Amino acid sequence: MARFRIAVHITPRKGLLDPQGNAVKDALHTLGFKAVRNVHVGRYIVLETEAYDAIAAEETVTDMCRKLLANPVTEDFEIESAVPA
Amino acid sequence: MARFRIAVHITPRKGLLDPQGNAVKDALHTLGFKAVRNVHVGRYIVLETEAYDAIAAEETVTDMCRKLLANPVTEDFEIESAVPA
Repeated sequence: MARFRIAVHITPRKGLLDPQGNAVKDALHTLGFKAVRNVHVGRYIVLETEAYDAIAAEETVTDMCRKLLANPVTEDFEIESAVPA
Repeated sequence: MARFRIAVHITPRKGLLDPQGNAVKDALHTLGFKAVRNVHVGRYIVLETEAYDAIAAEETVTDMCRKLLANPVTEDFEIESAVPA
């Protein structure tokens, strides 16, 4: 078993309302950043996990995203390549 | 003026407590993912903004991070290169 680090981006699905992103956009406008057109707020999760190899680690993290990390109805996730931790 | 897309990663500063990461780690253990050793939960923000060039866009987004997006006491931020939107 070796230890791997894997980063995951979880973003609101395109076309769905993103109330947090709109709130940030409004706050930026209020602060004077009038040139901002769109803001999307997602999560960035970095996991360290033990696995036999990088492919097994990535499969496990995909499973974690489906079961816990991402909301399958409203969010998309993207997993970066596993790197030795 | 052109439109640029810039992604920002905001992460809990190393060495500080990350209660959200620990909660996710415990939940993953409960679900049977016993091999998980560490979890860090940050934010992933994608902004679209108007600017004269990519450098100006990146400088503006750095300013946004300092003033609103990141907590300067507890979080680090990292800005990716601006790409035309």
